Amino acid sequence: MGAGTRFRAILSKQGLVEAMAAHSPLSAMLAAEAGFDAIWASGFELSALFGVPDVSIVSMTQHLDMTRAMAERSRIPVVADIDTGFGNAINVLHAVAQYERAGAAAVVMEDKSFPKVTSLIAGGRQEMVRIEEFQGKIEAARSARTDKDFVIVARTEALIAGLGQDEALKRARAYEAAGADMILVHSRQRTPEEIEAFVKAWDGSAPIALVPTAYPQMTVARVKALNKVGLLIWGNHAIRASVAAMRTTFARIRREGGIHGVESSIATVEDVFDLQGMAKVKDDEKRFLR
Amino acid sequence: MGAGTRFRAILSKQGLVEAMAAHSPLSAMLAAEAGFDAIWASGFELSALFGVPDVSIVSMTQHLDMTRAMAERSRIPVVADIDTGFGNAINVLHAVAQYERAGAAAVVMEDKSFPKVTSLIAGGRQEMVRIEEFQGKIEAARSARTDKDFVIVARTEALIAGLGQDEALKRARAYEAAGADMILVHSRQRTPEEIEAFVKAWDGSAPIALVPTAYPQMTVARVKALNKVGLLIWGNHAIRASVAAMRTTFARIRREGGIHGVESSIATVEDVFDLQGMAKVKDDEKRFLR
Amino acid sequence: MGAGTRFRAILSKQGLVEAMAAHSPLSAMLAAEAGFDAIWASGFELSALFGVPDVSIVSMTQHLDMTRAMAERSRIPVVADIDTGFGNAINVLHAVAQYERAGAAAVVMEDKSFPKVTSLIAGGRQEMVRIEEFQGKIEAARSARTDKDFVIVARTEALIAGLGQDEALKRARAYEAAGADMILVHSRQRTPEEIEAFVKAWDGSAPIALVPTAYPQMTVARVKALNKVGLLIWGNHAIRASVAAMRTTFARIRREGGIHGVESSIATVEDVFDLQGMAKVKDDEKRFLR
Amino acid sequence: MGAGTRFRAILSKQGLVEAMAAHSPLSAMLAAEAGFDAIWASGFELSALFGVPDVSIVSMTQHLDMTRAMAERSRIPVVADIDTGFGNAINVLHAVAQYERAGAAAVVMEDKSFPKVTSLIAGGRQEMVRIEEFQGKIEAARSARTDKDFVIVARTEALIAGLGQDEALKRARAYEAAGADMILVHSRQRTPEEIEAFVKAWDGSAPIALVPTAYPQMTVARVKALNKVGLLIWGNHAIRASVAAMRTTFARIRREGGIHGVESSIATVEDVFDLQGMAKVKDDEKRFLR
Repeated sequence: MGAGTRFRAILSKQGLVEAMAAHSPLSAMLAAEAGFDAIWASGFELSALFGVPDVSIVSMTQHLDMTRAMAERSRIPVVADIDTGFGNAINVLHAVAQYERAGAAAVVMEDKSFPKVTSLIAGGRQEMVRIEEFQGKIEAARSARTDKDFVIVARTEALIAGLGQDEALKRARAYEAAGADMILVHSRQRTPEEIEAFVKAWDGSAPIALVPTAYPQMTVARVKALNKVGLLIWGNHAIRASVAAMRTTFARIRREGGIHGVESSIATVEDVFDLQGMAKVKDDEKRFLR
Repeated sequence: MGAGTRFRAILSKQGLVEAMAAHSPLSAMLAAEAGFDAIWASGFELSALFGVPDVSIVSMTQHLDMTRAMAERSRIPVVADIDTGFGNAINVLHAVAQYERAGAAAVVMEDKSFPKVTSLIAGGRQEMVRIEEFQGKIEAARSARTDKDFVIVARTEALIAGLGQDEALKRARAYEAAGADMILVHSRQRTPEEIEAFVKAWDGSAPIALVPTAYPQMTVARVKALNKVGLLIWGNHAIRASVAAMRTTFARIRREGGIHGVESSIATVEDVFDLQGMAKVKDDEKRFLR
Repeated sequence: MGAGTRFRAILSKQGLVEAMAAHSPLSAMLAAEAGFDAIWASGFELSALFGVPDVSIVSMTQHLDMTRAMAERSRIPVVADIDTGFGNAINVLHAVAQYERAGAAAVVMEDKSFPKVTSLIAGGRQEMVRIEEFQGKIEAARSARTDKDFVIVARTEALIAGLGQDEALKRARAYEAAGADMILVHSRQRTPEEIEAFVKAWDGSAPIALVPTAYPQMTVARVKALNKVGLLIWGNHAIRASVAAMRTTFARIRREGGIHGVESSIATVEDVFDLQGMAKVKDDEKRFLR
Repeated sequence: MGAGTRFRAILSKQGLVEAMAAHSPLSAMLAAEAGFDAIWASGFELSALFGVPDVSIVSMTQHLDMTRAMAERSRIPVVADIDTGFGNAINVLHAVAQYERAGAAAVVMEDKSFPKVTSLIAGGRQEMVRIEEFQGKIEAARSARTDKDFVIVARTEALIAGLGQDEALKRARAYEAAGADMILVHSRQRTPEEIEAFVKAWDGSAPIALVPTAYPQMTVARVKALNKVGLLIWGNHAIRASVAAMRTTFARIRREGGIHGVESSIATVEDVFDLQGMAKVKDDEKRFLR
């Protein structure tokens, strides 16, 4: 069963796919272990891992390689954040073929122009492409997939760009008409009202995808109550948890002049061995090393 | 000033270089921010990031690329963990040239045979290469460096392999004679006594390097009191802190059905922007975008 | 249909798969265009492309990435040269899983010890692993494949190492018993007699694979007459053709002080556009760019 | 001495740097062997090597890795073709820093918009960026280099885009004013007249760079007579020579059913060993293997 088919099976069975951001196979494995349904192969998290701004600096090669590694090491579907598709519709053709081959279940492509700046920064420049141009990119994505279950999510930044609900709905309808399987709508409001208003007004049949980073009051229960949301993405909590923990741990080691104090608040070496599959290595050594 | 020269300047000024393990530019930047003197580009941490066992699965290309990225993004010297040197002395020639060009300050090479298993797992097979063979690898490393300040650290696994103090000292002396700039000696004992005995018995002039993962009672103060240790490596605390934090955060989000509860215990999005240098991007956009 | 299944279908239909060496998607596409049945993803050719000796310097990551790119861009099966399997049986488990995922149809693994030197150099050191050890690696390879049609070729260097026909046959039988789908036997003799004697004496049921680089008198007809050979590999003619052509072309441009003289002896820019698929790009631009 | 300084020393001594296109360390080494002064790390050649169209499909990571490998393996300066700079001025800041670190001597950046199509295809869409925007990118490139000798070449596609001599000259002057060290002007005319007219009309002090692929009558002598050209690039002859040779060789092997006939027209295996440095490996094995 392909990754896209697995994604659709979860959606069909549960009505909602809950995805956690990851930036590495390790974080993807931990997300699967915690019970999330899917992985969000986040461009923001990967940019942060590399210590560079999320403005189209990390290349498609770097993101694709990490997506492949995450798909290989976690058993749950991976939703790949491909930003603007790395260029125009010609680049999208190439990108979608590559992400499908890399084992992703879905791609999310947004209607900003390349190169992008991250959506959440105050005062960020948000140039959007024309509706017709983005429809061409969606059609290119559809034409490039070889598995019809591979999921194409069209993301509109209309609300982020301050263009309002009508423009957001207009774009969402146009993207569904062009063949998008899902519509992701993003908001920078600090409360869920803007997004909830959008979802309530949504009259298409494609499920909605949400990334409620800016409005953490949006719970799973509240999302389910909206009854039209098919994908809920927790967008950057893996890297934010890691940053805080490394800061705290590093500072304490510096302050205490040693590692004795932090031992009980970090994972043990054996925990890491377990995640790496060292038990299987020992079994395999017995089976295959002569 | 080259990276090796910077490393030697810190050693010369402080008597001890304190290095923190990292697995990414982000973790390297956080280690620098916390005040550590250097980065330990750990093979164990990188294997864990990729979710694979630390048994020569991660390739030199993957480790080298990450080492280069860490050297570029952090301002402090990077000490690269090159395991066994990725093969024999011919491979070492190639590896050392590559790591020096990638911006590393030092390499640590160990006297086990390729492919290795991680030193810390109980019952792990620990095959060592002959002393003469390892001397050839050290001489190859010296011959490959173009900057004479590039630091070559020879690591002996003699204590881990249960060969005793005499063999460990014999190997350390032979490695210094072959041109190693520093000697790293590793122990799996749960207390520092074995290592302290080694250091006290050490009669060479090369500084000693320690990685007190198994015996956390070994503090900076205790290391300094030994008076012969030049490099102290905290070997895997970046990844262990990250694992624990992601586990806790993910579990709480699952339990609470949302992200509202974890917000105060993880880094803010703005914290991550700061690490990524978004302020500089905004300045640069003003300067260069027309 | 998987790549291994396609390989087996050709073998079953024709009795012999004729493979040409390649070092890039371009050379793989040209081999397919010429009518060869399969691609030999040669470690020697890739080492040469990177200008480094074929002694385990090019990493598995580099070879795997190129194998994936060749499998994507050519329509014929790719047989991957994985040298010794990049380490012991544990590394083989990892490698075979990766090459299958990358789209290869087969892997060829040899019974030398890591790190290897190329088989064809006079006086090269040829250390072989024990038969039992290599059987463990073959069993690991079988256990790692998820598609039972993925082809595992065991290569013995017994003749190259000067161990004689009996040892070569003994190893070939042991490798078939361990589950190898094919046996590749290599020779450094300047004429086909040694290899022909081996093939005639072969009493197993696994087809034989040959790489007649050193004995070019071995034609397709002569191979077919042997009646037991299933895979014939032309081992390094893509890179050798390229080297000669670049040398001639570069020298003439230097000698003539310009490119006018070489125009008629090299491919046209339009030829290269055709290989790159520029016609499809123009069509796609019409379809998808708005 | 840095790579940029070496490039400038050749320019200063000879008045003209003659560069040959390359797509791999092997082709770069052969270009150096033939006596060319520099390597042109061509995006077109690398795209062709990967069998994909030259429309921003090959990522910066792929081109950068190949540029680094070429700089490491050839002793002559590498001029990197960075297309449009992989995005806007922010991407240029990142790209220039990376290429300088990778060992390039120079970058050539063009005034088309991203994503680009190759300049030489008939009817290709040629959208150019505004002059002010491209000046910002040049200033970004200057600000990102750490070695003031690193060479920044601004390439104008004004003639290709059919905008005429005045626009080409206007852009060239504006780019020099913004800090470009050299101006590359490209033409698709089948004879050198258009380019010669441009060069004669050029009143700036920055040397001109030419890529006379379309007009092969342009010899070194004719270029020198113009007296203002500092860099002459043979743009794609390495890959075109390779394509023709592989086609001929592959076809003959297929036709003759064997490799005996092609042996004398391709490089010997020993030739390839020499290029790979196998003699040094044998010496190093004697020195360092114990």
